[in-house]
Amino acid sequence: MKKRYLSLQTLSAALTIMKTAFPQSGGSVTISISESEGRVASEPIYARYTVPDSPTAEMDGIAVKSSETVGAGEQRPISLSNFVRVDTGNIVPAAFDAVIMIEDVRLDGSSCAIRKAARPGQHIRPPGQDVRKGDLIIPQGHQIRSSDISALASYGYDEVAVKVVRVGIIPVGNELVQIGTIPRPGQVIETNSLFASSFLSRLGAICTTYDLVRDDPPLIEETLQRAVSEQDLVLISSGTSAGRHDYSARTIMKLGRLLFHGVAMLPGKPAILGEIGGKPVVGLPGYPVGSQTVLRELVAPFLVSWGLAPLAGWIVRGRLARDMPSELGFDEYVPVTVGSVNGSSWIFPHPRGSGLQMNLVRANGYLHIPLASEGWESGAWVNIHCTSLPHQIDRTLLCVGAKNPGITQLAYALANRSVMLQSFYDLHSRALHSLKNNSCNMVALNIPGLEVNPGMFDGLKDVSAVALHIGRMQVGIGSRTGAGILDLANMRIANAPPGSTGRMVIDRLLTEQTINPDQVLGNGNSVKTEAAVISVVINGRADAGICSAVLAREAGLAFVPITYESHVLVARNESLEDERIHSLLQILQSPEFRDSLDYCYDTTLTGKVEECNTGSWQEVSFLDNWISDSGGG
Amino acid sequence: MKKRYLSLQTLSAALTIMKTAFPQSGGSVTISISESEGRVASEPIYARYTVPDSPTAEMDGIAVKSSETVGAGEQRPISLSNFVRVDTGNIVPAAFDAVIMIEDVRLDGSSCAIRKAARPGQHIRPPGQDVRKGDLIIPQGHQIRSSDISALASYGYDEVAVKVVRVGIIPVGNELVQIGTIPRPGQVIETNSLFASSFLSRLGAICTTYDLVRDDPPLIEETLQRAVSEQDLVLISSGTSAGRHDYSARTIMKLGRLLFHGVAMLPGKPAILGEIGGKPVVGLPGYPVGSQTVLRELVAPFLVSWGLAPLAGWIVRGRLARDMPSELGFDEYVPVTVGSVNGSSWIFPHPRGSGLQMNLVRANGYLHIPLASEGWESGAWVNIHCTSLPHQIDRTLLCVGAKNPGITQLAYALANRSVMLQSFYDLHSRALHSLKNNSCNMVALNIPGLEVNPGMFDGLKDVSAVALHIGRMQVGIGSRTGAGILDLANMRIANAPPGSTGRMVIDRLLTEQTINPDQVLGNGNSVKTEAAVISVVINGRADAGICSAVLAREAGLAFVPITYESHVLVARNESLEDERIHSLLQILQSPEFRDSLDYCYDTTLTGKVEECNTGSWQEVSFLDNWISDSGGG
Repeated sequence: MKKRYLSLQTLSAALTIMKTAFPQSGGSVTISISESEGRVASEPIYARYTVPDSPTAEMDGIAVKSSETVGAGEQRPISLSNFVRVDTGNIVPAAFDAVIMIEDVRLDGSSCAIRKAARPGQHIRPPGQDVRKGDLIIPQGHQIRSSDISALASYGYDEVAVKVVRVGIIPVGNELVQIGTIPRPGQVIETNSLFASSFLSRLGAICTTYDLVRDDPPLIEETLQRAVSEQDLVLISSGTSAGRHDYSARTIMKLGRLLFHGVAMLPGKPAILGEIGGKPVVGLPGYPVGSQTVLRELVAPFLVSWGLAPLAGWIVRGRLARDMPSELGFDEYVPVTVGSVNGSSWIFPHPRGSGLQMNLVRANGYLHIPLASEGWESGAWVNIHCTSLPHQIDRTLLCVGAKNPGITQLAYALANRSVMLQSFYDLHSRALHSLKNNSCNMVALNIPGLEVNPGMFDGLKDVSAVALHIGRMQVGIGSRTGAGILDLANMRIANAPPGSTGRMVIDRLLTEQTINPDQVLGNGNSVKTEAAVISVVINGRADAGICSAVLAREAGLAFVPITYESHVLVARNESLEDERIHSLLQILQSPEFRDSLDYCYDTTLTGKVEECNTGSWQEVSFLDNWISDSGGG
Repeated sequence: MKKRYLSLQTLSAALTIMKTAFPQSGGSVTISISESEGRVASEPIYARYTVPDSPTAEMDGIAVKSSETVGAGEQRPISLSNFVRVDTGNIVPAAFDAVIMIEDVRLDGSSCAIRKAARPGQHIRPPGQDVRKGDLIIPQGHQIRSSDISALASYGYDEVAVKVVRVGIIPVGNELVQIGTIPRPGQVIETNSLFASSFLSRLGAICTTYDLVRDDPPLIEETLQRAVSEQDLVLISSGTSAGRHDYSARTIMKLGRLLFHGVAMLPGKPAILGEIGGKPVVGLPGYPVGSQTVLRELVAPFLVSWGLAPLAGWIVRGRLARDMPSELGFDEYVPVTVGSVNGSSWIFPHPRGSGLQMNLVRANGYLHIPLASEGWESGAWVNIHCTSLPHQIDRTLLCVGAKNPGITQLAYALANRSVMLQSFYDLHSRALHSLKNNSCNMVALNIPGLEVNPGMFDGLKDVSAVALHIGRMQVGIGSRTGAGILDLANMRIANAPPGSTGRMVIDRLLTEQTINPDQVLGNGNSVKTEAAVISVVINGRADAGICSAVLAREAGLAFVPITYESHVLVARNESLEDERIHSLLQILQSPEFRDSLDYCYDTTLTGKVEECNTGSWQEVSFLDNWISDSGGG
């Protein structure tokens, strides 16, 4: 057995090693102030001019000698001939020491009448009121804001020296192809360098991505040496694991020294730090999720220690909707979606696989589970680091329960109204419990037939809830041959997942002795998803399976309908007043949405709203929905 | 009297008028995904590829048939010859259905030994595990993050369509000169277009600044017409007030129509909205503070209604350290500095003048006082909109009391350690009260002579406090002629501000009958600052004044010393453990800092720390510090 990592450091130790080995570097570059927003000043900047430079009118009006206005009053106007007209910003000539607003003056040829004495200095900005030549404008290390740029320009600058770190990024791997290339099977588009460049530029780094390098040690060596000579920090993307072509650690050891290989963080464990010619070289994991975590948690704080600007971060405190176990000894970062339910924030984790890049897109934040924590149980209060702006988090709707194509379509339509519907799988009973507990905005149910078990909403008994119909979908026999019910007698039938409408159909076929138990393959847990049913039929391991029409057709199987499955959303009555759910209902009831479901749904009931607890449901049994023409044969 | 504004709208009404008159515009532009961070997608984007496209190894190891591994165990290894070596990301050939990690395999030529059965699908990523072709990646209106860019590239995109608004900015004014020009007296560097461009670009606008236009109606008209034909929104900067050359409103009325002139907001009241050729034209006030407020509070929310991205904003809740009155009927925005004192946030307002651009640089936030509020008293809890990142706010030290050159130097030195020392003027007694109340981090005192009144720290009696010496500064006679004490008998002497060391000197000279009351000019309140004393002497309205050596010399006056003024900082004992105050003390005690004070301080005591309440002070009377050689004559 081979050793996977030379040494596994904690994240905090890894960062300390990195800061200690490379205490200070990066440089300074002078750029136009118009480009400097968000950058960090590399030296203090002092005003070149006094502003205003002369006594200046603060208002539009007339400049006067205050001593000549003494005694003026509402009933006793004074007429002045010794004055000049000034507008805001004009220099007040040395002969005058006050300005009277134009609204308070009656001009009359070369003289004017005033009705109030002016005090010395009135409406005059003295020289240096804003800033005096030589005053500090911004100190070294100041992160420049738009209003600082304007001030720098006002006080004499058109350029500013800012801190900069040159970062070189080397993508390595035979399987990688460049962005814009159509990947062949097994090829992957190289995107880690793009993320690194976009992300680190925001800190003030100047990023250079080198050409893609094959898994060829001499080539890697050559590129690495060139990058180290040209950059302050080098990132080598991928080649950090234990595969046959993972040359990063070996090349670093050959050209310099390895400071660590492996960090106790998930994702991101294969991270490497090396030193070549006095420069830091970081090896990034190949999977985007791991690579991004190493950049965010290790490289970014390191660059901040070199003087670049930290990124803005928001924390939201909320409660976990699911248990969140974590391996002791690892700093773990879990992508999550946080949403607001009746004013409380609830947090749903996404699956943690480091190959699941889409979860970072779906997530609006991440949860850090420190290395000394074994995680938390559902209901615990935790802090989330947001990756979306607060206004987008406020627009998130949390849906728990079944998944189905209708909810996917609904999420697409809602997204165009800036509402993010995120759905998380759970069993019906537990999903209804979440609605009762106010830990989700709505629940999705896939109900076999149109049969609504009167006990189905018992869990909601103290809650006034409404069901919103999405539509009903045909369920039937998927096969390569077009089998109907009467054809099943001699066929191998793939079992359906427990709890599914397909499983209920099989159970009824068994009860009616249309089929017998020997025919049903994969009893127990081996068939976990409807996709697996389809796959078993396509592979020929079974002759037929019970599935939805849409999946069978997408897979190119013949389909004969047997019954329906109804898809509904359940929400609290009062949440119909929530603008986000109001938008959802508007969409459900629109003809455009109905049309978009046509390809796989019977939309007779789409958009209908029914109270869950009043028994107004159409009480039709599963049997009533048995479709009569499914005989076949 | 003339009418200043044609109509004064509330800010909320102004925004509604603007959104209603121009319900939707702006367009879409396709840009490289590498430039798209922070931009808003103008259409939904769907995956072009299924990722992974084939069953893929999730680990480095060997691909096997799971059925051939059944029965393998720690004590019962199985030898396999039907396998292939795979690395993470490699396609698993169709003949195999599981991957065994390389760490769990003993390779032996063309066969290998395993000690554990593999379950079907183990360590294999099924096709589409991350995303399936046609899945939504990001919806229309989504603000693109770095991780979205990486995902877009992985799923087939190198470009993305984003929302864009073209904004034209026209700077107008005879007094304006371009950035990079050295302004002559009365000239102002034009920076509002730079701020507008920097600020609005962050929302996703494409900004074009037109050449500076003189106050010449035909030229303004021509430029405005060209801008309206080229842009989606036009900003005309300045020319919005009632001055003789304020042509914005008149030109808009000539070319189109005026929707409002004047908004009940401070700063920013002169804002204008017009319509020319169906396009919105906004008139911005000339002063930077007003202009920036109109851009932030009116133009930015309007552009967000057109689909651009809102800017990130942080709120900090804290207590007002000062009364904050406000005019009823106006939305007011006050620049403030918020800092942390023993874990509580305290808020100090900066002066509100719209010509005081430097206050926006000093401030780390602003307070919004809604139009229906008359403001708040000190101690009230309010929400602050931050303009600096939270980590910078945490680095702010609040100092209350006197101002002096030593504190300015200290602030500069601290800034280079990323500590922002902000000082706010207050009387000694009230400043000490703030320290007792924990509403500031430290207090600055300018103490006449070295005489420390034992009662001075009575206000702190329950607080253990320490005084940190900055240094002592000479105070004496500033004159055009080099007058000493004995020369004062026949001179006109400018009075000094109440409470100042200068005033104490004058009072003693009067007591000793060195001078008589008739000689003292500006009794009462007319001389409010030391700068005014200097100015009165320079103008010849007085022959001499009592002031500090440094101010006299800076103004080119002769100076004869009389006594000293000691400058100390007072902090709570426990705050010496605060890392920021620890840094401050390190600086105070460094030779470099002492050297930097040399030009105006006696630094014998600089950096000395004394407990305020123990009486260890050197009890020397004011008299003892009378400098003997100040006789002159």
